[in-house]
Amino acid sequence: MILKMNDKFVKPFIADHEYENIQPMVNVADRMLREQNGPGNDYLGWMTLPSDYDKEEFARIKDAAAKIQKNCDVFIVLGIGGSYLGSRAVIEFLKSQRYNVLKKDTPDIYFSGCNISPADMNELLELCEGKDVSINVISKSGTTTEPAVAFRVFRNLLEEKYGVDGARDHIFITTDRSRGTLKQFADQAGYETFVVPDDVGGRFSVLTAVGLLPIAVAGISIDELMQGADAARGDYINPSLAKNDCYRYAVTRIILYRKGKSTEILVNYENYATMFNEWWKQLYGESEGKDNRGIYPSSVIFSTDLHSLGQYIQEGRRNLFETVVTVNEGGSSLLIPDDPHNIDGLNFLSGMDLDYVNKTAMQGTLFAHMDGGVPNIVLELKDRTAFSLGYLIYFFELSCAMSGYLLGVNPFNQPGVESYKKNMFALLGKPGYEDRRAALEARM
Amino acid sequence: MILKMNDKFVKPFIADHEYENIQPMVNVADRMLREQNGPGNDYLGWMTLPSDYDKEEFARIKDAAAKIQKNCDVFIVLGIGGSYLGSRAVIEFLKSQRYNVLKKDTPDIYFSGCNISPADMNELLELCEGKDVSINVISKSGTTTEPAVAFRVFRNLLEEKYGVDGARDHIFITTDRSRGTLKQFADQAGYETFVVPDDVGGRFSVLTAVGLLPIAVAGISIDELMQGADAARGDYINPSLAKNDCYRYAVTRIILYRKGKSTEILVNYENYATMFNEWWKQLYGESEGKDNRGIYPSSVIFSTDLHSLGQYIQEGRRNLFETVVTVNEGGSSLLIPDDPHNIDGLNFLSGMDLDYVNKTAMQGTLFAHMDGGVPNIVLELKDRTAFSLGYLIYFFELSCAMSGYLLGVNPFNQPGVESYKKNMFALLGKPGYEDRRAALEARM
Repeated sequence: MILKMNDKFVKPFIADHEYENIQPMVNVADRMLREQNGPGNDYLGWMTLPSDYDKEEFARIKDAAAKIQKNCDVFIVLGIGGSYLGSRAVIEFLKSQRYNVLKKDTPDIYFSGCNISPADMNELLELCEGKDVSINVISKSGTTTEPAVAFRVFRNLLEEKYGVDGARDHIFITTDRSRGTLKQFADQAGYETFVVPDDVGGRFSVLTAVGLLPIAVAGISIDELMQGADAARGDYINPSLAKNDCYRYAVTRIILYRKGKSTEILVNYENYATMFNEWWKQLYGESEGKDNRGIYPSSVIFSTDLHSLGQYIQEGRRNLFETVVTVNEGGSSLLIPDDPHNIDGLNFLSGMDLDYVNKTAMQGTLFAHMDGGVPNIVLELKDRTAFSLGYLIYFFELSCAMSGYLLGVNPFNQPGVESYKKNMFALLGKPGYEDRRAALEARM
Repeated sequence: MILKMNDKFVKPFIADHEYENIQPMVNVADRMLREQNGPGNDYLGWMTLPSDYDKEEFARIKDAAAKIQKNCDVFIVLGIGGSYLGSRAVIEFLKSQRYNVLKKDTPDIYFSGCNISPADMNELLELCEGKDVSINVISKSGTTTEPAVAFRVFRNLLEEKYGVDGARDHIFITTDRSRGTLKQFADQAGYETFVVPDDVGGRFSVLTAVGLLPIAVAGISIDELMQGADAARGDYINPSLAKNDCYRYAVTRIILYRKGKSTEILVNYENYATMFNEWWKQLYGESEGKDNRGIYPSSVIFSTDLHSLGQYIQEGRRNLFETVVTVNEGGSSLLIPDDPHNIDGLNFLSGMDLDYVNKTAMQGTLFAHMDGGVPNIVLELKDRTAFSLGYLIYFFELSCAMSGYLLGVNPFNQPGVESYKKNMFALLGKPGYEDRRAALEARM
């Protein structure tokens, strides 16, 4: 079994009949997903993606990754939101949060075009000095401010480095299949392009070219990643909560939410999961946070943050629940050395594996938090492999869709993201925003 | 003015009389702090620290930092919670989140002993291969599991590298002034030691040797940091809310909390502030999260997370408020290149400074979120210098103390942190925990 939901630490908070009562609604939501007739039904491409993807493009992604690995020291991904979080999450989860400082035979990978900071941009430009650089611009429309500005800057850099012709080998574009000026321009300029499918939203796009090219550049098997996701797809076909941990996770969240547990904290005991937690926060926060409702997504890395947010979780407001992702097998190993002086009084740990201590800290914390009034859902992942991570990704995507439908929202749109953009464009003097600009300036 | 609280985007949510009504309680809480007779009054050392610190030790910190800069490539800080968050926050805020990959004449700095992950530890050991290494163990008691285990591992490494005698030049201990086996052992072994004061809790300790030694190693002026904090100390002596932005921040938070705004999101528009946000989360979460109350602390980096949590903040549950820290002057500069093809339709931005666009994104977001029902407190910091950051640190510490007293909790203890530790020790078979172990095992 690749993934198991352990509900031991949530049982005191939810009675069996609560699951039974919600099963009919789960069946309805499942049909809405399978028959593609619910809200946002134009964006269900991610459901069948793990088996039904473009095999020709998949092969081209691997070829492009090999070329990038060969011809550059630094690979820069330009994208924001779902256009960078998925690949960064996977790379750090399977390699390391410190990927760039490790000895390796794959390029350094940086993420740009995900903010508007000149400090950040100038630093990256400095890091590129004397290095061979390739970039991957990821933007469906090609007009999103952050990656578009970064593309202007890095295209100039590459054309200075390699000339207009030479730059062609260093620029890869992931965008709309046919529409949009970025696709048009890329074709004219002769850049290799990959597709952001029409029916897959940004936060569900990690298993498209959006995520797969950077992941492949890091030397991770995208075949195994897809196979893992496909295994999850097959395992979660039956909507019965007795047989479907993915839906059971969704339902458990919604039941807890209806009891006033309105903040969910995703917990991991390894810092390689930091960005995976961020990916999860976008997936759930953007899918559910609308119509004045939704579970607020937060995250921690333990035991680190047991010495930070731990106090609040143990004794603060009781509107929290936790979801703990733990990796069962094949972790790293380090035996705790004995200390003849026993300065720290910890010689009872001598010779124990640090991984065992880490897992025991988790057990102790699960009891402590449950006893403190915080329900804990535990998701046990088999191992730290591309296959299992692909499985986990699909698990979270599908449960997110189910959860959104049970909450009564459209889990596939993000209307609120436009609000700040419209104000920003107005204040920056974008043509067509004159009225909004005048209205804002009157308020300043 | 170093720091200004701008309440334009919170005004629609709080009437003036609400501030007037709470002024008497602020006066009482202020006296509890100044006269040291409130809850937790043994831990008020941080209040006078910026002027009243040990000058001899301060000079030794600078000498030790110079020695470390000279004799090592890699400097490893071993500490958890308040023993690492402050220094890491300051180093990244003033240098960079990517400090370790930048060209520089100071050592790489890694943080260990803040988790129980063998993957993380093994990776660090690999990074030390062939490098000159120094460590700074930071632990008041010397018995906290995470840094203690890391100290066992790295002491072995250093003694293998340099021999027992040579290792002495590479080990620096920050611990209790006189008590505890770590202090005893350090004296016997001849390690240089620094003091964790008795009257300063971990999360308030960044301006003691705990934070200052690593900060100085990174080449940051600890004089300016202290001077900035001392300027804040002087500026916030008057408890009148009309004259004290520090208390006004505390009071605004508490008023919003009493209206049901129970989650506070600390916002920054530069990713160099990521770890500063984490430091803030410990400071407020651990100080307020007790007795089943407290504002839940969360954080984001914009515009990055406007494409992640932005949707929730704009349209999700209306129990949120934001505190935005923005740096006014002296940011980095980068002019947006013109694109003759105007692929992205953004030529109206050509020639604009990216920093201006970033600040305009902030303005647009402030209006959008306020209009969406989310109050926004804005803290405008003069510039990105050690002086201003010291000022901001003291601002947050003092307002946290005020906020905690208004909330009716002891802001200086953290009783809940023991709960998981007791369970962990019991499950690991620590002598003296046999009964708890039996009780837990019966539940497993």
